[in-house]
Amino acid sequence: MAADSYPVTARTRVRRKPDRGHHDKATVNAVLDAGLLAHVGYVIDGQPFVMPTAYWRAGEHVYWHGSAASRMLRTLAGGVPACLTVSHLDGIVLARSGFHHSLNYRSVMILGTARPVTGEAEKSRALEGFMTRIAPGRWGEVRGPTKRELKATTVLVMPIEEVSAKVRAGGPIDDEPDYALACWAGVLPLETRTRRPLPDARLASGTPEPAYLKSFRLG
Amino acid sequence: MAADSYPVTARTRVRRKPDRGHHDKATVNAVLDAGLLAHVGYVIDGQPFVMPTAYWRAGEHVYWHGSAASRMLRTLAGGVPACLTVSHLDGIVLARSGFHHSLNYRSVMILGTARPVTGEAEKSRALEGFMTRIAPGRWGEVRGPTKRELKATTVLVMPIEEVSAKVRAGGPIDDEPDYALACWAGVLPLETRTRRPLPDARLASGTPEPAYLKSFRLG
Repeated sequence: MAADSYPVTARTRVRRKPDRGHHDKATVNAVLDAGLLAHVGYVIDGQPFVMPTAYWRAGEHVYWHGSAASRMLRTLAGGVPACLTVSHLDGIVLARSGFHHSLNYRSVMILGTARPVTGEAEKSRALEGFMTRIAPGRWGEVRGPTKRELKATTVLVMPIEEVSAKVRAGGPIDDEPDYALACWAGVLPLETRTRRPLPDARLASGTPEPAYLKSFRLG
Repeated sequence: MAADSYPVTARTRVRRKPDRGHHDKATVNAVLDAGLLAHVGYVIDGQPFVMPTAYWRAGEHVYWHGSAASRMLRTLAGGVPACLTVSHLDGIVLARSGFHHSLNYRSVMILGTARPVTGEAEKSRALEGFMTRIAPGRWGEVRGPTKRELKATTVLVMPIEEVSAKVRAGGPIDDEPDYALACWAGVLPLETRTRRPLPDARLASGTPEPAYLKSFRLG
């Protein structure tokens, strides 16, 4: 394995359509850094649960957080196997046969075990990293966390070690005889967009709109 | 339980922020019908896996499909516990304290056991339902599935029985003293948009763009 790639394990080898699989850090990081919502899987009494949750990356770790009372976070903080998946849907691929229809997407699946970030300063620093990812500079504008708030917040961190990315891009690939069919074929691209910021009802008039609202990008 | 609501079980009761929880069929169906990509959780040797996959709803069932060779589909077709989650990210909620930042979202989590759709006619009908959800009328335009293609495709169906929806909407809710702070507060709305269709390189010039490309909506 090259230093700029993650190892391929039996669990992260991409078996179906292996040409879509990637394990290099550049691809993994690009997919992770384009997202905000992950789906985290964990098991309770043999039942898998998949919870949507905000996440962020710092170096070779992913973080997520929430209420210390959350069942998901309490379960995962106990050090059980977890899976964090991030997906971006980029388009619908319309082929000339039903069979060859597909989706364009970029996804990353990380397997591992999370641990709680402990210590007030460490937690606070992690949360600052999350806000900086969304709104650089905002951490200095808002009221910082109190001791009580930090205590009520669980922050989990999981190393990016066992991971795979999958990417499909481009147009349909049809069976040769089907190219003679008259139906439309191609890609309907999809993207996530921001809309105009909605100021809070109690915002003082004249409060300037921060630049990070305009520069925020997702997907 | 009302006939228009799903039962609340110990596993689908929304414990955190219960005011965000919903179990009525109208809310569940609206969230499911606004999506195309689900995250499906399953367990192999104690390890949860979360896979992004296309899905669709018909009545009180959700469907997904893929290659008969897929490990996910082979595992799930064996009748093991599964979780299918659909999430729409609607906005970033920027509060006046770090602690009260949040996300606006709509999500549905379905717990259950999937079974394979068997029989060529039944499979074909299910796949037609999927295409009709995306592109009404297209099933009659493309080449239909061959026996070999149907054999190579696994279609799974899971009843919607044990399910919860969670929805957060609206602006930030700050601690009263924090309203005096000068920082911007409100919501940065997010939405999924289609872009202009990209015709396939080998599409005959003059092939009309079907109306379903314009009317397709997501999220």
